[in-house]
Amino acid sequence: MAANSDPALDTDYHAAGFGGALQAGNKPVLILVDMVRAYVDPQSPLYAMGEAALENAVTLKAAANAAGIPVILTNVEYGPQGAEGGQFFRKVPALRNFFKGSPLGAFATGLEPGAGDVVVTKHYPSAFFGTSLASMLVAQGVDTAIICGYSTSGCVRATALDALCHGFIPLVVSDASADRDIRPHEANLFDIQAKIGNVIDTAGALDLIARR
Amino acid sequence: MAANSDPALDTDYHAAGFGGALQAGNKPVLILVDMVRAYVDPQSPLYAMGEAALENAVTLKAAANAAGIPVILTNVEYGPQGAEGGQFFRKVPALRNFFKGSPLGAFATGLEPGAGDVVVTKHYPSAFFGTSLASMLVAQGVDTAIICGYSTSGCVRATALDALCHGFIPLVVSDASADRDIRPHEANLFDIQAKIGNVIDTAGALDLIARR
Amino acid sequence: MAANSDPALDTDYHAAGFGGALQAGNKPVLILVDMVRAYVDPQSPLYAMGEAALENAVTLKAAANAAGIPVILTNVEYGPQGAEGGQFFRKVPALRNFFKGSPLGAFATGLEPGAGDVVVTKHYPSAFFGTSLASMLVAQGVDTAIICGYSTSGCVRATALDALCHGFIPLVVSDASADRDIRPHEANLFDIQAKIGNVIDTAGALDLIARR
Amino acid sequence: MAANSDPALDTDYHAAGFGGALQAGNKPVLILVDMVRAYVDPQSPLYAMGEAALENAVTLKAAANAAGIPVILTNVEYGPQGAEGGQFFRKVPALRNFFKGSPLGAFATGLEPGAGDVVVTKHYPSAFFGTSLASMLVAQGVDTAIICGYSTSGCVRATALDALCHGFIPLVVSDASADRDIRPHEANLFDIQAKIGNVIDTAGALDLIARR
Repeated sequence: MAANSDPALDTDYHAAGFGGALQAGNKPVLILVDMVRAYVDPQSPLYAMGEAALENAVTLKAAANAAGIPVILTNVEYGPQGAEGGQFFRKVPALRNFFKGSPLGAFATGLEPGAGDVVVTKHYPSAFFGTSLASMLVAQGVDTAIICGYSTSGCVRATALDALCHGFIPLVVSDASADRDIRPHEANLFDIQAKIGNVIDTAGALDLIARR
Repeated sequence: MAANSDPALDTDYHAAGFGGALQAGNKPVLILVDMVRAYVDPQSPLYAMGEAALENAVTLKAAANAAGIPVILTNVEYGPQGAEGGQFFRKVPALRNFFKGSPLGAFATGLEPGAGDVVVTKHYPSAFFGTSLASMLVAQGVDTAIICGYSTSGCVRATALDALCHGFIPLVVSDASADRDIRPHEANLFDIQAKIGNVIDTAGALDLIARR
Repeated sequence: MAANSDPALDTDYHAAGFGGALQAGNKPVLILVDMVRAYVDPQSPLYAMGEAALENAVTLKAAANAAGIPVILTNVEYGPQGAEGGQFFRKVPALRNFFKGSPLGAFATGLEPGAGDVVVTKHYPSAFFGTSLASMLVAQGVDTAIICGYSTSGCVRATALDALCHGFIPLVVSDASADRDIRPHEANLFDIQAKIGNVIDTAGALDLIARR
Repeated sequence: MAANSDPALDTDYHAAGFGGALQAGNKPVLILVDMVRAYVDPQSPLYAMGEAALENAVTLKAAANAAGIPVILTNVEYGPQGAEGGQFFRKVPALRNFFKGSPLGAFATGLEPGAGDVVVTKHYPSAFFGTSLASMLVAQGVDTAIICGYSTSGCVRATALDALCHGFIPLVVSDASADRDIRPHEANLFDIQAKIGNVIDTAGALDLIARR
């Protein structure tokens, strides 16, 4: 049983003053976190059952592109020694799958960056850490970050937390995100809803994109 | 059942290349995250069953002080509008308990800062975000961060992740940390061990302090 | 002769593609950088001939307060070992004037923070470095930073550069800023105009505040 | 006359408590800032009379490589809209010379990155801003940054200031740095020596590398 499937826990958190609902702003960005082959190829050691999330992300990206909402695609890439990854590269040997040029690091089918999309290459879980993403969003007047990708317990959560900390409203799309096990997926969605941002689904995200 | 109590899950993560053990460095710091009354006073809306963790933290602080290891105590403090907390302050109404001067924001008994200790006042979950903590540690040659406090799923995890990202080796002391529910506590320790740092206990931390 | 008093140099820089004029945005903040007694008291070792700049800053603050524009006042404050200042504290022994409680660190007369103003305590030159200032401004939708204070070559320039880097439009008020010598003052205004932001005067800043 | 050619000014700054000499540490890195063709090609709009500095930088890089000291080469690169450069890209139209693939953005002859060197691509003046450079250096135990490149008043100074702020000891190599005019070059070396780091020459840097 995942941490967030107990209604009593939700009630307890709300009573204590967690889980406020943030109001989405007027200028959203769509951030697709690490939606690369490593997480959707069943042969990959990092496979995260990401196929359904991918399908939803493809829909979201098309809608954002059509609505003129900026789209960010993140990936992870290291040089031959992994120096750019510092202690993270030592902690997670699986990151060797992201040496520059690795096929597992390529964007998943359907999410190839278009002419107006921006690729942010990162070395750490958060799309904001050690990148100029926050600056780019501020310069464009963005106030809201629609976030999805892989994995919920890793780079998605870290990106959502940093979005909040940098002053943006994080909206995490649960069914466009995935993890290698349902339990960390659900436990992290619980934490996100309690303390980091709003957990929404693809239908909700599409509504929000359409209302702009 | 918490996410991390399934041995099969640990095995699966290790096989995939997660959960590497980081080697502790030679120059540690002890970071006591938000060990304030809000989390140990049963009358507080933020009460997190933190008494046992507090006892262990008091032991750790005494050992670190005796060994000449730098000790950082973090707290949270906002001005009357909570402006410093930005979107985080809007997401978590419970942060109103940390207006400047609130008794719940005072350090817990036994953890009053001493002359050589440094207090880092923060506005976000991570002790590193929006503070000069990383710079201070770099200037002192610190390479390893022994981290404990409240809550495991919030400020402790966020601090551990940022420690890793900034280039330090995070060692999270599980029994000197606590949360308002055992399930998020355990689920987050699982994630930390898998992708962020080493989860140790107070005895292990004391050993490490003594070996310096 | 200061670096920026040669019209040929301005021409050369413009021809090369420097010194673009940024368009002020719709949501400014006023940042008063380190306008404390240390720089306006002729007995202070840090005296920077700051009296005229102070008079202009008092006018700017009154206008911003009246117009409902957020006002940030920065100061500098260190604990007894100066640990928070890291290498900067070692490089500049003059920073010992800013130990917590030092009279030289108090805000200059006329710039005492009001109820709605926010004080940002910093340990490094830039008001953004090691503080949560950028996050606070993003959460408020700020797009433009009107910046003045002491000293032009130190904390004012560093703050302006970080404002630019974080995605804000920096407008530096030359006659509400000062330095201990006119040459670094002018040389840094030249660099700011060439590569960092718009250099304006108090009259221009008041116009901009009134137009909101 | 440049701001720093007046001995009386140096005396005044020292008496006030500026210009402390930092002691170089045991674990240096060599950071070559933006040593690309744009600054050494007399036909380039960004030409900065950088030939002599380039010759010295080639010598420094060879010495660092031979001594096993890590070498970082920075460059600047933007996508087709320059979105990554935010407000900086708007302020400095000359940055259009650094669209991805521009010949002016290629490393200068003699400074092609070797197998063990790390390239850090940045979007802002400082090599640390919006990059994971600080984290990489911390993870390697680096304490000292030998810095040179183009231009002194822009990316070299910004990199030196951020090195200081992040907790490293900045040593700026004056004769391996250059600017499009001698006046900003000298005025910024004065500020660097007063408040940011030690200004050394190539001979001094080679000594320091040899002593390791």
